[in-house]
Amino acid sequence: MIERLKNYNLSPAQIIVLFYVIAVIISVCLLSLPITVNPGVNWSFLDVLFTAVSAISVTGLTVVSTADTFSTPGVFILLFILQFGGIGIMTLGTFFWLIIGKKIGLKERRLIRTDQNQSNLSGLVNLMKHILIIILAIELVGTIILGTYFHFLDYFPTWQESFIQGLFASVSATTNAGFDITGSSLEPFAKDYFVQIVNVILLTLGAIGFPVLVELKDFIKNKNKFGTHFSLYTKLTTVTFFSLMIFGTIVILLFEANHFFADKSWHESFFYAFFQSSTTRNGGLATMDVSLFSTSTLLALCFLMFIGASPSSVGGGIRTTTFAVILLLIMSFAKGQKNIKVFRREIHEDDIRKSVVVSFLAVVICFSAIVILTKTEPFSLMEIMFEVSSAFGTTGLSMGITPELSSIGKTVIIALMFIGRIGILSFIFIFHHEKTAVNYHYPKEKLIVG
Amino acid sequence: MIERLKNYNLSPAQIIVLFYVIAVIISVCLLSLPITVNPGVNWSFLDVLFTAVSAISVTGLTVVSTADTFSTPGVFILLFILQFGGIGIMTLGTFFWLIIGKKIGLKERRLIRTDQNQSNLSGLVNLMKHILIIILAIELVGTIILGTYFHFLDYFPTWQESFIQGLFASVSATTNAGFDITGSSLEPFAKDYFVQIVNVILLTLGAIGFPVLVELKDFIKNKNKFGTHFSLYTKLTTVTFFSLMIFGTIVILLFEANHFFADKSWHESFFYAFFQSSTTRNGGLATMDVSLFSTSTLLALCFLMFIGASPSSVGGGIRTTTFAVILLLIMSFAKGQKNIKVFRREIHEDDIRKSVVVSFLAVVICFSAIVILTKTEPFSLMEIMFEVSSAFGTTGLSMGITPELSSIGKTVIIALMFIGRIGILSFIFIFHHEKTAVNYHYPKEKLIVG
Ligand SMILES: [K+]
Ligand SMILES: [K+]
Repeated sequence: MIERLKNYNLSPAQIIVLFYVIAVIISVCLLSLPITVNPGVNWSFLDVLFTAVSAISVTGLTVVSTADTFSTPGVFILLFILQFGGIGIMTLGTFFWLIIGKKIGLKERRLIRTDQNQSNLSGLVNLMKHILIIILAIELVGTIILGTYFHFLDYFPTWQESFIQGLFASVSATTNAGFDITGSSLEPFAKDYFVQIVNVILLTLGAIGFPVLVELKDFIKNKNKFGTHFSLYTKLTTVTFFSLMIFGTIVILLFEANHFFADKSWHESFFYAFFQSSTTRNGGLATMDVSLFSTSTLLALCFLMFIGASPSSVGGGIRTTTFAVILLLIMSFAKGQKNIKVFRREIHEDDIRKSVVVSFLAVVICFSAIVILTKTEPFSLMEIMFEVSSAFGTTGLSMGITPELSSIGKTVIIALMFIGRIGILSFIFIFHHEKTAVNYHYPKEKLIVG
Repeated sequence: MIERLKNYNLSPAQIIVLFYVIAVIISVCLLSLPITVNPGVNWSFLDVLFTAVSAISVTGLTVVSTADTFSTPGVFILLFILQFGGIGIMTLGTFFWLIIGKKIGLKERRLIRTDQNQSNLSGLVNLMKHILIIILAIELVGTIILGTYFHFLDYFPTWQESFIQGLFASVSATTNAGFDITGSSLEPFAKDYFVQIVNVILLTLGAIGFPVLVELKDFIKNKNKFGTHFSLYTKLTTVTFFSLMIFGTIVILLFEANHFFADKSWHESFFYAFFQSSTTRNGGLATMDVSLFSTSTLLALCFLMFIGASPSSVGGGIRTTTFAVILLLIMSFAKGQKNIKVFRREIHEDDIRKSVVVSFLAVVICFSAIVILTKTEPFSLMEIMFEVSSAFGTTGLSMGITPELSSIGKTVIIALMFIGRIGILSFIFIFHHEKTAVNYHYPKEKLIVG
């Protein structure tokens, strides 16, 4: 399959985009089936497209209530699409990484303990199997824990319903889809810290990045005793991931102390802050109506959603590593260092350049989207900024304006979810092959900047 | 003086900051004189400090009405501070450039046709003279044109008042100070296109960058027939400057077509758009109440103010060259080029690195300021974003909230005007000497970004 696509002379970025486009088309078809929705529900093509892109990109923004719109078979179809989206993303992300990795050397490729020849079909199938097994195992454990818990705490009338809810919650959390069939996200569990902790763990496993999971598995199994060291990527993305989680928790606690948390106990406040901070990495689930937060907190959440999750994960945004490289760049510049040093390694000029371009383009794209939406939608700037950050980060948190967006508004959000999903780098490389540019030089001349 | 400062082992950045701090202290003293204000006016220390920083940084944001607060001697004191701020900025900016330039080669230094040995006192005095003559000449011409025009069109009752208004308008425009003694900026001249054109020319001469003026003078005089070519800096900043002006005009015309311009003629619309676009470079004067614009337009103005004017000019923001380098970086990346090529020259890696760091830090600083102000002030997000961009760009346009800011709010805006003025690069280098960092290396390791 890959080989045949190569005959059409497609770049890896173009292959990824093509896969997503096909996945969206299939999802639109599945969602348009009469059995998908409850009797009497009639939704427009734009709403179907919106839901398809939101599901395939595991964003979780919705223009229709999932609980009211979807029939029971529809819920399973949706689960299938989320699963397909989540796993597809991981596979393609890792695949893309491996293709690029081929140019770097053996070490990185060895991290993924599969066939050496990654870009052929058998390598890809192997990789997919590997990912599928890990994800399904995580989801199965999540379903059993949540289903049993729901059943014994009598959250739902029957054990069947408990397990369907458990299954949906587990898949939605692990794939970071952010969809819910409770009708109000995780708000019913606002005081159930156990459910929240299970959800945060599942969300994190999905968003931390597939290579991290593989390295972690290796570390635990300790199979290659001499080679067990974590890659720079794993160290950097993990530290950034959890730092952002802690930073977000502290910021929300501080900003809301005299506001939303004024009448809450310390543990309620902590869990509200902790869960909403964790969910900005990519989850998109919420234990409360986020529009109750103050503007300062909402801006901080926008910032966190814009950064998003790890690369090669189910998450969107500019990605944690990109953000980390930018931070390190500023710090090393201020120290007068020419190179970025971190964890006794130096970061490649190429990666710095990519991070910079990705971040700037992301700002340009989000800012343009915000300007367009302030023109076409009647909502406040804060609401628009929040929804745009959420779509670009494929986070799916919402202040509630998405269902009321105009057609232009919905189209802009669809585009953002799609770009957030495929990533800015793939987005840039849609338009050209990575051919080597003609190598000529002009004299250098100094400028005055800043 | 410079030599003595060097004995204290201060870096150029630290010298610049020191100069500004001293200038602010002197301005506070001058503004605190009893003769400065009208009888009965009693302003707080914070308001005096705000006005001093606003004047020295030629921002033009005001917490008190200049027209009502200042006595006639006070107006001249204010003019003196603006003049000192504007010229000081240009001198120091160029001085800084020359010191850095010394490490590059002779060509750049030759652009400033003064003494070769720029970093000693006589070189600096020469340079200051040069700048002073150019600025005063521009202001004199401006005063004569505007004063005569005001007098003959009976804008003011006496010819003295016409010329005082002409002088103030000319100095305020040339230094891009944005202060006004009409009480409502240039709104009285909303339909006087002549006054607007004169103002735009004066604003542009002040904001286009001193090295550009010198090269232009050389070009016109054609003194060195063999050496007359424009530097990359001049080409890049001039193209960017005017492109932003045109871009802004078009955007305002488009966004306001069905809104503020709905009942205006084409030439009124054009001049409103053209003037407000030009003034975002750094002028800060306005022919209308900008808060009448729609949110989309205001966001576009924020973007333009954030970019600001040319380096080595009276303007603030991240500077036009910084913005241009970032744009070129994205474009060359998308084309797969490793180097940035423009006007048959290549841009130094060092300048790219500086531009990137400056832009990111600027975003971080402005975003943090916005978050703080949404916490402490009761105003809308749009109003806060506008005032923050205006302060950082030392532009001085206002949606009117500045006089009502809390003490924390005023302090944040003072800090932004100061940082916007000294520039992000100087701001970074306050904290350390540009000593060469210890030159050791770690192995490079690839990452996954974006
Ligand atoms: K999501
Ligand atoms: K100004």
